[in-house]
Amino acid sequence: MFGLMQDHPLLISSLIEHAATFHPETEIVSRTVEGPIHRSNYRELRDRSKQVANALATLDVGMHDRVGTLAWNTCRHYELYFGVSGSGAVLHTVNPRLFPEQIEYIINHAEDKVLFFDISFAGLVQELASKLRSVTHYIAMTDPAHMPDIDVPNLLCYEELVQAQSDRFTWPEFDERTASSLCYTSGTTGNPKGVLYSHRSTVIHSLMELAPDTFGVSSRSTMLLVVPMFHANAWGMPYAAAMAGAKMVLPGPRLDGENLFGLMRDEGVNFSQAVPTVWLMFFQYLDANPDLDVRSLKLEGVGIGGAAPPRSMIERFENDLGVEVVQGWGMTETSPIGVINRLLPKHMDLPEEERMRIKMKPGRGVWGVEIKIADENGEPLPWDGKTSGHLMVKGPWIASGYFRKDGDVLDADGFFPTGDIATVDADGYVTLVDRAKDVIKSGGEWISSVDLENAAMGHPAVAEAAVIGVAHPTWQERPLLIVVPREGQQPTREEILDYLKRNVAKWWLPEDVVFVDELPHTATGKIQKVKLREQFGDHTLPGVQSR
Amino acid sequence: MFGLMQDHPLLISSLIEHAATFHPETEIVSRTVEGPIHRSNYRELRDRSKQVANALATLDVGMHDRVGTLAWNTCRHYELYFGVSGSGAVLHTVNPRLFPEQIEYIINHAEDKVLFFDISFAGLVQELASKLRSVTHYIAMTDPAHMPDIDVPNLLCYEELVQAQSDRFTWPEFDERTASSLCYTSGTTGNPKGVLYSHRSTVIHSLMELAPDTFGVSSRSTMLLVVPMFHANAWGMPYAAAMAGAKMVLPGPRLDGENLFGLMRDEGVNFSQAVPTVWLMFFQYLDANPDLDVRSLKLEGVGIGGAAPPRSMIERFENDLGVEVVQGWGMTETSPIGVINRLLPKHMDLPEEERMRIKMKPGRGVWGVEIKIADENGEPLPWDGKTSGHLMVKGPWIASGYFRKDGDVLDADGFFPTGDIATVDADGYVTLVDRAKDVIKSGGEWISSVDLENAAMGHPAVAEAAVIGVAHPTWQERPLLIVVPREGQQPTREEILDYLKRNVAKWWLPEDVVFVDELPHTATGKIQKVKLREQFGDHTLPGVQSR
Repeated sequence: MFGLMQDHPLLISSLIEHAATFHPETEIVSRTVEGPIHRSNYRELRDRSKQVANALATLDVGMHDRVGTLAWNTCRHYELYFGVSGSGAVLHTVNPRLFPEQIEYIINHAEDKVLFFDISFAGLVQELASKLRSVTHYIAMTDPAHMPDIDVPNLLCYEELVQAQSDRFTWPEFDERTASSLCYTSGTTGNPKGVLYSHRSTVIHSLMELAPDTFGVSSRSTMLLVVPMFHANAWGMPYAAAMAGAKMVLPGPRLDGENLFGLMRDEGVNFSQAVPTVWLMFFQYLDANPDLDVRSLKLEGVGIGGAAPPRSMIERFENDLGVEVVQGWGMTETSPIGVINRLLPKHMDLPEEERMRIKMKPGRGVWGVEIKIADENGEPLPWDGKTSGHLMVKGPWIASGYFRKDGDVLDADGFFPTGDIATVDADGYVTLVDRAKDVIKSGGEWISSVDLENAAMGHPAVAEAAVIGVAHPTWQERPLLIVVPREGQQPTREEILDYLKRNVAKWWLPEDVVFVDELPHTATGKIQKVKLREQFGDHTLPGVQSR
Repeated sequence: MFGLMQDHPLLISSLIEHAATFHPETEIVSRTVEGPIHRSNYRELRDRSKQVANALATLDVGMHDRVGTLAWNTCRHYELYFGVSGSGAVLHTVNPRLFPEQIEYIINHAEDKVLFFDISFAGLVQELASKLRSVTHYIAMTDPAHMPDIDVPNLLCYEELVQAQSDRFTWPEFDERTASSLCYTSGTTGNPKGVLYSHRSTVIHSLMELAPDTFGVSSRSTMLLVVPMFHANAWGMPYAAAMAGAKMVLPGPRLDGENLFGLMRDEGVNFSQAVPTVWLMFFQYLDANPDLDVRSLKLEGVGIGGAAPPRSMIERFENDLGVEVVQGWGMTETSPIGVINRLLPKHMDLPEEERMRIKMKPGRGVWGVEIKIADENGEPLPWDGKTSGHLMVKGPWIASGYFRKDGDVLDADGFFPTGDIATVDADGYVTLVDRAKDVIKSGGEWISSVDLENAAMGHPAVAEAAVIGVAHPTWQERPLLIVVPREGQQPTREEILDYLKRNVAKWWLPEDVVFVDELPHTATGKIQKVKLREQFGDHTLPGVQSR
């Protein structure tokens, strides 16, 4: 027996329709790729999204067709968010920072029918176009005056294409499980994998982003969206902002401190989200310009994710700027809310040091994300803050698989393996220990490569460090430390190990140290341990018979 | 093409599981029907809900069976919320304030299989039992020491029944559209009608109740739930509180100022919701006890709904107590969020008087509730704050029909007719004008009976007033004012009309005034205009030929 409630599919088009109806004048402010500031609002955004939807039809883009974007955070990209998904096509946001071969692979794998691109990427598009097998039209997201001079088939101008269309369009109704957008993860191994979001997952995830225990997005928010719209849907914020009617400020291609600070000051930004690197640049800008009146900013909260922020960053935001830091952990596969760090009422009166210890954790569970840490056999491990296991997540906005990739991803209980090793404490706060494939399995215990690397980086002569597991006849694996010395420094194996003895447990101590000039990195800056393992996997540890 | 996201049904059991996992120690504090305060927490609530689920199986209650409750806001009622719906049965909360014949009708119409009741209602149950055709067991929600001495078949003791059960129970998974709970509306005409909620509607509605633009329920909330759990699921708060892990304070049978104030003070309540009548009693208690330290309360916000609060109430909360008032309008059929009054950023700097004018409105739209005002032909009317029309709503937590009642309820576009006449202003704020069936249709224009009644009540000699439309040969209908004079007062027709001339538009002036000793009321205190129309519908207006 079903309830007698109205049966409406949860569709992304409802978000922009709500914003246009109840917050028509609320502004969308963009730094354009061309340079100047552009001002729009939700009514215009809705109307332009409908023009986009009509334009897609003229390009023969239909339900389920993939529409690629290579674009920064701008109003045009925002129009595509609603125009493409709202019309039933799939918005495929491509990360322009990947290696060209990866971008080529991704677009061909997704079979993007058309490709929208910012003029910053004209050269890249020119370089790739001949290898992209499915793309029928290339649309430069600019006006006629700024059209790039490149030679690609069916090059169109966004403004000409869109403005030629009517803003009358009836959003289609369809099953809420329909695919809405697509984003490829670039891991450190293998080809990128496509996460295919649905309208349902997006809308439910947006609802949770309004909750005060996550980001508390509301009609009183003025949000500077620094996290890229090509990165897990900018953490879902473009959708949540429309659902709440928040004012949106888009920084365009410039993530430098000057642009961010200027937008914060001029637009009254009270919330922003970015990865630690961006905030580091932001603080460097503030330091270089001590005459700036940072106290005049209306910033109240920042979201930080993508990597662990240093303690000094949290302290600077909270103590110097009076800004609450909301850390979070997630992945492309988690839409991206996995866990969010908000303090509980019982933490409010703790001493500063205790509160900081909790604030340094990535976060705790919110409704919609079930969490499990599991041993090698998939059995749940206790939440004691010490026992580490495979972090597994389950819920309506978590991926069940990858686009055009067979094979089971979920475990028998329906949990998605994040690939992370983590502990969970009694209050449900998760602490990440290492990536599962990087952890060193030594005598039945796990050694965190991340923790060892961080410890080694503390040595003044170490510029960069990586730790991999190397086979060992007694212990299964033992850690090998690979060090890039600072310029002009020549630390010895013994110096480094002596230093580490004072900073890590004895059984964690690396069996050996090797020195290299540089470490291999991915396009997004991660160390490619798979390459290091290829290179050093056969390294003969001291005291072990060489093979 | 579907997205590749996990496909989990949205079920009410997930709410209590989340709370028990991530907020196990967060308290549920109840004033019991037996008298003392009872302290529990979400872990216990989950465990006891599972015992309830096991107990239901022993009573042969299966999927979709209706389980009636006649109960106050207590922890036991809260256990039933999760135990009954979580196990797939339908929680049917019955309003014990209705007339006994209505309760009899409702329980028989719903075919409740078992009936849980607070011992306050033992006499009522004794009176009704012989007429209840479907109820196989009566469970007194108390311990063995307080069992009522009544003679009903299969009388059981809640604590004996529940404590005998294991707290091991696996919540079943089923279609999220499955019926979860049932609540009858008692209009002023006809038999009560049953609104049948689903798991899906309840979970989506709960998500929206976390939003800062509605009630902002969070893990930092300590909520005093005054609005009855038999009234539209206590405005959905029992679900939202568990989803967010809010501390819950339940006042039991005592809605008096002393109990509410004591709970607020002792439990650190920062949010509460109730109808204006309850807050009126609360302020009367404060006035009678000037030594109470109201400033020691941690109250930050109150929700007010169910009726329009007087301006003085909003001012007293906001100016004297520093408490933000959140008005809302909804119905049993809207789960109940219809519109919610939060000020927009642009209102923050308005002069006090302007802000109050906006705060007096019931509210504006939130995502999930589409709004239309329509003329007699269903055509949409403009949002100009002046044009009034039938208020229609549409969304995933709005009713599509009534339990066991045939006939179309929604209009051709899927909108639910609220039965209210309203205006909507350019910012989407709704103002209720009148009930559609009570509005007086005079010469093609509408006259609000509510506004005329309020105006008449301003006359010092008027204790109560009602206005109905009476047939008129020229104008179709004209207003007739029915007045109950204050004790010892004998106002004349001319005095009243003279007074009104100064307070209402000329064409709104009642054609005639009649005086009566009392007005007919429903069980919940509304004036029964249908009875007045029976009595006075043939009233001969001055200057009109009698029929």
